[in-house]
Amino acid sequence: MSFFRENIDAMDAYVPGEQPPAGAKVIKLNTNENPYPPSPATLAALGDFDGDALRRYPDAMATAFRQAASHALGVGADWIIPGNGSDDLIMMLARACAAPDRAIAYAVPTFEFYRAQALVEGARRVEVPYGEDFALPVEALAEANAALTFVANPNSPSGTAATVEQLDDLAARLEGVLAIDEAYADFAEQSALPLAKKHENVIVLRTLSKGYSLAGLRLGFAVCGPAIRAGLLKTKAIYNVSATACAVGAAAMADQAHKNANAEKIKASRRRLTESLEALGLRVWPSQANFVMVRPPDGQAEGMYQNLKNRGILVRYFKQPSLQDKLRITVGMDADNAALLGAMAELAGEESD
Amino acid sequence: MSFFRENIDAMDAYVPGEQPPAGAKVIKLNTNENPYPPSPATLAALGDFDGDALRRYPDAMATAFRQAASHALGVGADWIIPGNGSDDLIMMLARACAAPDRAIAYAVPTFEFYRAQALVEGARRVEVPYGEDFALPVEALAEANAALTFVANPNSPSGTAATVEQLDDLAARLEGVLAIDEAYADFAEQSALPLAKKHENVIVLRTLSKGYSLAGLRLGFAVCGPAIRAGLLKTKAIYNVSATACAVGAAAMADQAHKNANAEKIKASRRRLTESLEALGLRVWPSQANFVMVRPPDGQAEGMYQNLKNRGILVRYFKQPSLQDKLRITVGMDADNAALLGAMAELAGEESD
Repeated sequence: MSFFRENIDAMDAYVPGEQPPAGAKVIKLNTNENPYPPSPATLAALGDFDGDALRRYPDAMATAFRQAASHALGVGADWIIPGNGSDDLIMMLARACAAPDRAIAYAVPTFEFYRAQALVEGARRVEVPYGEDFALPVEALAEANAALTFVANPNSPSGTAATVEQLDDLAARLEGVLAIDEAYADFAEQSALPLAKKHENVIVLRTLSKGYSLAGLRLGFAVCGPAIRAGLLKTKAIYNVSATACAVGAAAMADQAHKNANAEKIKASRRRLTESLEALGLRVWPSQANFVMVRPPDGQAEGMYQNLKNRGILVRYFKQPSLQDKLRITVGMDADNAALLGAMAELAGEESD
Repeated sequence: MSFFRENIDAMDAYVPGEQPPAGAKVIKLNTNENPYPPSPATLAALGDFDGDALRRYPDAMATAFRQAASHALGVGADWIIPGNGSDDLIMMLARACAAPDRAIAYAVPTFEFYRAQALVEGARRVEVPYGEDFALPVEALAEANAALTFVANPNSPSGTAATVEQLDDLAARLEGVLAIDEAYADFAEQSALPLAKKHENVIVLRTLSKGYSLAGLRLGFAVCGPAIRAGLLKTKAIYNVSATACAVGAAAMADQAHKNANAEKIKASRRRLTESLEALGLRVWPSQANFVMVRPPDGQAEGMYQNLKNRGILVRYFKQPSLQDKLRITVGMDADNAALLGAMAELAGEESD
């Protein structure tokens, strides 16, 4: 007897992006962190933290955070489920919805954690390939009619986004749950939040890791109606969100101005970075996220990744058939982006020597 | 089509112990929190927290915390897996090991979250009843030979503990994984940590919620060898432990003296509380935890729970066949314990009026 289920023995563990040790002199454009600090109110909330709140169990539903999120987003607090990052919510969904005979569907390439969760559940996987333009294959996902469909919107690693109208159409045609992962919504033109109200099978996932500069805190949330909520709470850990995350997250949510100002800066940098990369001859897919997906002129993405790494600049390379000629580059502060562009120009010069 | 798996639709959600709002005037002896504050070093770690550590993803393996735990416990850091509380580790184990044809076994009554996880996985459950003395039914658990066996040791809600020799014997006879949940080890006479080294099928779970007074932080860890580690990492969320939990947990682990001094105070209070409860005519099971399980003389546990609650004292009542005549009472500070004893004496007086 193996210690583990067959499908667990057969799968590989998910490998996160490289995280250099704190203090390392590296320009880090590989894991889509926000380059700007979180709201000063978040550090104040940590500094004011009360030993009694550490000693006691947290509120199992992170009510203070949900109330702040409710106020910021205009959705009822009882429509919000808190998670230890949105990973936690993705896992809760997979456990509640998926099984060998209950499929998980998604367009690929996308966030690989969906696939990892399907493998953990031993669920049938429907992987619909994106085309070169990375338009969401609504038709094929609707036909698959899986028990659980994930759409990362904006998508990672492409940065492209479907319209709310497309997602509305998809939701109406699916019998199962449609999970719209809006990790990058703070940098996008639209949000599908209204669809959670319109369709009982829609759940929208959000995170504080990107727009709110709080990746280290581990806090995400889902917005969904009572039908999904009832099942999802059964796969939730009892106390999945710490008292610290609850307090800091509430402070971050209350400071929308800080988040919005950073998002505007990042969107402006994204526009300039896109133009400069295109000027260097790279193809850049239209991004609504805090990163861009690019194709070097010669398609030698792995070589470019390695050459940039040798110069102290980390970007993300995914060794997968449809991505092997592409890189995903986080939009950093302007100085970081300039260093990246300088290194790329230098590499192009060396090649042409 | 339901949104959820059949077994999810059929189960109820786990209900945590009541948590009165912060600042409520309640003597809280219902969720086994440590009555003493955490090490001052933990609040200092929060106050010193760096915005950059909030902004960036945390170390996926919480290395700084594991190193501190390794140093404190004398086990290799690569034998430690961090968790978002020990709930997280229990969920990781259930997902990796259990399936409809791969059973989860445990003696009952015990921590109800094991049962919840078996229900989520749709796994066969082997529930071996404890006898009146709450001695671990080693024979029956060995015969069940489940894919995953949980032993809470000390057990909750009984407070009783099996010896390491009994657990050693059980581990040797099981082919599947033996998860020894030592949430209350800091108040116990023995620890099964050496068994993780001796048996490749043993994993020991620990938490910082009880001994270290950090229930609000959500931090636990498992100690196991490479065979279990390989599978368990596949069901781990990518970044399951926040940067804050990692830093605060490392500070707590480094201050063993603080934790040990509080544990000694609690053990002394437990001894005095036990004697006083027995003097009031209650049966008290021998506890190695920071709580005691008691039976009121008339077996009217629910009435006593309600009467105590009316006097502002919360204890834990479990509405289950084998527990309906018992209460679980957390050992509080001496003043809290005195208030409890006073209220009980008063109630006994009223009844005999």
